Amino acid sequence: MTFSVTVLGCSAAIPVIQRFSTAHLLQTDGRFFLIDCGEGTQIQLRRYGLSAMRIQCVFISHMHGDHTFGLPGLLSTMGMNGRTEPLHLFGPAPLEGYLQQVYAFFNPPEFEVIFHALPDQPQQIFEDKQLTVSCFQLKHRIKTWGFRFEEKERLRNIRPDMIAYYRIPVRDIPGIKAGNDFVTEDGEIIPNRKLTVPGIPARSYAFCSDTVYNEDMLPYIDGVDLLYHEATYAADQAARAAEVFHSTTVCAARIAAKAHAKQLMIGHYSAKYKELEPLLQEARTVFPDTILATDGLTVKL
Amino acid sequence: MTFSVTVLGCSAAIPVIQRFSTAHLLQTDGRFFLIDCGEGTQIQLRRYGLSAMRIQCVFISHMHGDHTFGLPGLLSTMGMNGRTEPLHLFGPAPLEGYLQQVYAFFNPPEFEVIFHALPDQPQQIFEDKQLTVSCFQLKHRIKTWGFRFEEKERLRNIRPDMIAYYRIPVRDIPGIKAGNDFVTEDGEIIPNRKLTVPGIPARSYAFCSDTVYNEDMLPYIDGVDLLYHEATYAADQAARAAEVFHSTTVCAARIAAKAHAKQLMIGHYSAKYKELEPLLQEARTVFPDTILATDGLTVKL
Repeated sequence: MTFSVTVLGCSAAIPVIQRFSTAHLLQTDGRFFLIDCGEGTQIQLRRYGLSAMRIQCVFISHMHGDHTFGLPGLLSTMGMNGRTEPLHLFGPAPLEGYLQQVYAFFNPPEFEVIFHALPDQPQQIFEDKQLTVSCFQLKHRIKTWGFRFEEKERLRNIRPDMIAYYRIPVRDIPGIKAGNDFVTEDGEIIPNRKLTVPGIPARSYAFCSDTVYNEDMLPYIDGVDLLYHEATYAADQAARAAEVFHSTTVCAARIAAKAHAKQLMIGHYSAKYKELEPLLQEARTVFPDTILATDGLTVKL
Repeated sequence: MTFSVTVLGCSAAIPVIQRFSTAHLLQTDGRFFLIDCGEGTQIQLRRYGLSAMRIQCVFISHMHGDHTFGLPGLLSTMGMNGRTEPLHLFGPAPLEGYLQQVYAFFNPPEFEVIFHALPDQPQQIFEDKQLTVSCFQLKHRIKTWGFRFEEKERLRNIRPDMIAYYRIPVRDIPGIKAGNDFVTEDGEIIPNRKLTVPGIPARSYAFCSDTVYNEDMLPYIDGVDLLYHEATYAADQAARAAEVFHSTTVCAARIAAKAHAKQLMIGHYSAKYKELEPLLQEARTVFPDTILATDGLTVKL
């Protein structure tokens, strides 16, 4: 089962040619979840062969243009392409009013956009059979949220040889995958651990952008498999970063270490950085399992 | 002196990877005039090495997203890059209210945007030393304007050999370039045509998108050097084109012929056309001096 994150844009406020404004796409089992929607997101989706029509939910972190200005165009294109399925949009409360204004001057999309205002308190905001999504506040110049996407515990896998050996009826298989023991016709109890092997471990991904260094987020991202944490600046710009409520490479790496993340992806680079390798090296001095977000990169978990 | 048009986006409503939403950049003598501003225009400007800071005026043809959704991001980036010079924005009256709403939810730019509502009647809307811009209405589903950019008549060039021969004082040269005769110390009148050669002819460019086939525009684009006319559809889609108030290749070519345009550039292609060459060939059957708009193309006049 797929659980992957594709970076559609990794730039800070000002996009550059090879780095569009912020957007990430999470794919789980054929379903698409879009996180932030900077200008040009719909073009990036096309560039990387990802159909916008498959997006079920959009999560918007905060009301800055470089995280939202792609939304009117994306909704418009979905409508023109004949979308009828409702879209769930999670974002700061003012986002709903902003979109109403866009609809008033242009046209509303021809499908339903179901808006969910992000809560002030950390909270689970979405759940389906395979996944939960929770949000929590970051610390930026305006209200900003981080998101954690968490697969549900996966069922154990039944051993085919045991099905044959004990002649297990098909009707009993779901129960055994869920952890039941099996009772044979003779009344013998076969313990579950003999019949099954563990399923693939549940995977998780957290998105934290934009934010200054802030340990308050640690409980909500603890143990995450992949942490995306912004690193707008190099370490020598720590004062500037704090002033504008952004993070340096080293801030991001410290958060990853304290959160016991398995892997860190940095991004949201200031347009002034032509070369990203030095940013990567800085982060790795603190947290070795760091990678660079680049437009088009897909991380499979 | 430069007089060139760069295509920043040549797609119809839905952008595709190699064809961004509509935007053109006219360069005249180092000054930039932007016509329409679809999503991603600021990225295209960067891609083609054109500084957004040099844009003096923006002209918006109509209130459809594929011609306007790049404006909030462009203004925001200009502000972050430290622009202080006012920007003149010409567009449909509702555009001002829309931008006020964008500013209310995000931030207004830190420089002045001077808004000029487009008039219902054909009219000159801009003039400076070298150029005039006039607008006129097209025929689309909503109010839409076309624009004509026209260089002013250029001064005649004085012949250096005549300056030496008649010992023409420097103070008389501007008058002679403007058409005066020269009177020698002996009272001899030297006719202007003997002293000068014609200057470079004034050049012109007209932008007509989006529009159905409409001969009403002919007086305003007559004799233009370069006519950009939309051709959303191939000729076999004439009924569909008329229904949605767009043009076919052949419509655009007929308008170019009837307007005595020197060259036609077609664009605003529907996303369904993968290959553009057949569209070009269709237009050329009616108007041979036709070229295809493609993202990044610069036409020097």
